[in-house]
Amino acid sequence: MLLLIPGPVQTRPETRAAMAQDIAPWDNDFRAVYAEIRTQVLDLAGGREGEHATLPLQGCGHFLMEAAIRSFIPAGGKLLIPRNGAYAERAVRLATEARRQVVSLHGPDTRAVAPEEVAAALAADPAISHVVMVQNETGSGIVNDPAAVGAAVRAAGRRLILDSVSAFGALPISLAAQPELDALLFTSGKCLEGLPGIGFAVARIDSLTAAAGQAGSWSFDLADVYQHALRAGWGSFRFTPPVQALAAFRVALDLHAAEGGQPARLARYAENMRVLYQGVQALGLTPYLEWRHQGPVIVTVHQPADPNFELQRFVDALKARGVLISNFYNTKVPTMRIGCVGAITPEDMRGAVAAIGKALDALGVRQRQAG
Amino acid sequence: MLLLIPGPVQTRPETRAAMAQDIAPWDNDFRAVYAEIRTQVLDLAGGREGEHATLPLQGCGHFLMEAAIRSFIPAGGKLLIPRNGAYAERAVRLATEARRQVVSLHGPDTRAVAPEEVAAALAADPAISHVVMVQNETGSGIVNDPAAVGAAVRAAGRRLILDSVSAFGALPISLAAQPELDALLFTSGKCLEGLPGIGFAVARIDSLTAAAGQAGSWSFDLADVYQHALRAGWGSFRFTPPVQALAAFRVALDLHAAEGGQPARLARYAENMRVLYQGVQALGLTPYLEWRHQGPVIVTVHQPADPNFELQRFVDALKARGVLISNFYNTKVPTMRIGCVGAITPEDMRGAVAAIGKALDALGVRQRQAG
Repeated sequence: MLLLIPGPVQTRPETRAAMAQDIAPWDNDFRAVYAEIRTQVLDLAGGREGEHATLPLQGCGHFLMEAAIRSFIPAGGKLLIPRNGAYAERAVRLATEARRQVVSLHGPDTRAVAPEEVAAALAADPAISHVVMVQNETGSGIVNDPAAVGAAVRAAGRRLILDSVSAFGALPISLAAQPELDALLFTSGKCLEGLPGIGFAVARIDSLTAAAGQAGSWSFDLADVYQHALRAGWGSFRFTPPVQALAAFRVALDLHAAEGGQPARLARYAENMRVLYQGVQALGLTPYLEWRHQGPVIVTVHQPADPNFELQRFVDALKARGVLISNFYNTKVPTMRIGCVGAITPEDMRGAVAAIGKALDALGVRQRQAG
Repeated sequence: MLLLIPGPVQTRPETRAAMAQDIAPWDNDFRAVYAEIRTQVLDLAGGREGEHATLPLQGCGHFLMEAAIRSFIPAGGKLLIPRNGAYAERAVRLATEARRQVVSLHGPDTRAVAPEEVAAALAADPAISHVVMVQNETGSGIVNDPAAVGAAVRAAGRRLILDSVSAFGALPISLAAQPELDALLFTSGKCLEGLPGIGFAVARIDSLTAAAGQAGSWSFDLADVYQHALRAGWGSFRFTPPVQALAAFRVALDLHAAEGGQPARLARYAENMRVLYQGVQALGLTPYLEWRHQGPVIVTVHQPADPNFELQRFVDALKARGVLISNFYNTKVPTMRIGCVGAITPEDMRGAVAAIGKALDALGVRQRQAG
C-alpha cells in the first residue's frame, strides 16, 4: 500500500523496524541516541548551540502549537494569525481557548499571505507581540514564506512563532538568519519521514528564559521543558516519551542526511508534486490551487461534478489499487487531498496517477471537472 | 535485556512487532481496530456503554492528569489531593499551574491514605468538589484503594478522579460500582504491556457533558474529545495519534485477555513482587516499604550504606548482567526502584535477584543495610 497522505507518512522499512524494540528512555545508551537527535535537529533548523535549544514535547502538532502560544505569549496577550488555511484556524482556536487575544488577518486559502499584509496589521495594532504563522498548509497545499513574513515582523519589532509541522525537513528555514523567530515547531511523522508521537520546538534560549512562568500549564510550559533539560544535564524528558518513535526518528534523520538533506528532500517532493499535479490535470481533474501557488507537500484536487463520484467510494476504489489517500478534506468546496511527502518517489507518483485514472473509470466518473 | 522499570515496560515480541507498520489513522480498516480497543478498555474499566466513554489523548500520563483536572474542575475550583507519593506531588503541580486550588492531605509515602482521612478533609471544606488520587504510586510502591476512598467521597457528595496510570489492567477497578468516579486515567505502556505514546480517560458521559467549556485548553478538553468522537461517529481522534502505539496496544489487550484478564495479571505481578521482595531481603537489602504496605507494581529498596555502592555504577553492573533498572529514585532517602510489571515472570525475577547479588558482589558492597 502506498500512503499518499500529509502525515503520518509512508516511511522506510529501516525506520519502521526501529519501532519494534523495548527501550528505557533514561538509559545511558539511549541518552546518546537522543543527544544525536537534538544536535541533528538544531543543525537542520539552522540554529546555534548556546543560542537555540531543541525541546521535545510528547503528543502531536496541536499540543506543540498550544505550548508555544502559552509559553511565549502571556495570558491576555495579543497575537496576529494569518488565517489562510485549516491549520491556521486551529491555531486560532488553540490560542482563544488558552485565553490569548487573537487578531485575525483573513486571507484566501489559495495563496500565501503577503508580507505587506502582515506589516499593515502589525502597524495597526501596537499591542500585538507575536505573529503565529503556518509555514505549509496541508488544508490546501499553499506555502507561507517565513523569511519574507519574518522580515516584516522583524521590521515591526515583533516576534514570530512558526508552525513548521508539515514543512520542516523539506522547506528551507534558518533560525540564525531570523532573530525574530522565537520558535519553530515540527513533529516526527511528516517531511522527516519518521513515525508519529513526538514533536519538537526549536526555540531561542533568551526568549525561553524571558517566558518563564507564563504558560498557565505545566504540561505545555516550554520554558520548563528547557529548565528541566538544563538541570538534568543530558536534555532529559520531563515525562515518559514515546521512545520507540524517537528511536525511529533517529534512523529517519540519518536517511534524511544521506539523501542530501533539506534541498534533496525538497527536490524529490517537488517532483512528486509536479508528476501528480500534471497527472491529475491530464486525467481531466482540476487542482484546487493555481500552479504558481502550489506547494510541494500536498496537492488538493476538486472533486468531479459527476454524480458517480463519492469521496469514500473513490478512496476505496483507489485503495483496492494500492494507493491510500485521505477520506476527508479541509476546504470549503468539496476536494480531495493527495500527499506528495514521505518515502515515495516520482515513479510511485506515476503509478498513483494511473491508479487514480483506473479508479475514476471503475466508478464511471466521466465529468471530471468541478461543478 | 530484562527491563525492570515501572514503565515503559518490557513487552511481548508480538506486541512490539505491531509497531513496525505504516498506518493511516482514519482509514476504515484501522477504525475497526480502534473500535475494538475502545470496547475492550470500557469492559476492563467496568464501564457501561451509554454511561461511560473511552477517550484517547495523545502523549503521556501527566497530560491526561492535567486534562482531567482542567475538564472536570473549573478554573479557581477546589480539589483535594492525598499527597503520599511522587505522582501525587506532580498532580499538585499540574493543578496549581492550571489555576485550580489544591487542598493538600499530607501523608507518608509508606502507606495508603485512609478513607477516614479523606472524609475528614472533605468535611472540613465544603468548597472541595473533587478528590484527585493516584491508585498506585511508582514513587514508593504503595497502593491507594479507590473503592474504600471512593466510598468516603461518595458519602460526602463529592467526585473522584483516579490516576490509574501504573495500575490499570492489574489492580481492580469498576466504574459502574463507583458512580462518584468521574474518570479513570491510564496509558498504554504500563500494566497493559503496550508501548508508550497514548493515554485514555474512561469517563462518565453525564460528567463530560456538564464539563463542557471549562478546560481553558482545547488540547486538554476531554469534553471536546468526547463531542468530537460523537460527531465523527466512529470515535475519531481530533489530532494525529501515535497510531503504531495503538496498533500494538490492540495486540497487548488481546494478550491481557488471553492471560486471564486483570485477576491473572495481578496474580503474576504479585508473585513477581514476592520473589523480588523476599529475594532482596535474602541478599541483605532492606525494602523501603513494610510487607503489609507493599503493592505489586514496584519494589523500592534502600540503597546500601556501604561506600562502595553508587547507584549508576550499580545500575551499570546490573545491566552488564542483563537486567535494567531505573537510575533515579523518587523518595527523600536514597533508594532504588525495581519494577515487577511488564512481560516478565517469577522465573525472570529469580534470575534478576541472582543478578542483583552478583552486581553487589562485583562492586564489593558488603554493608547492605541502609545507613
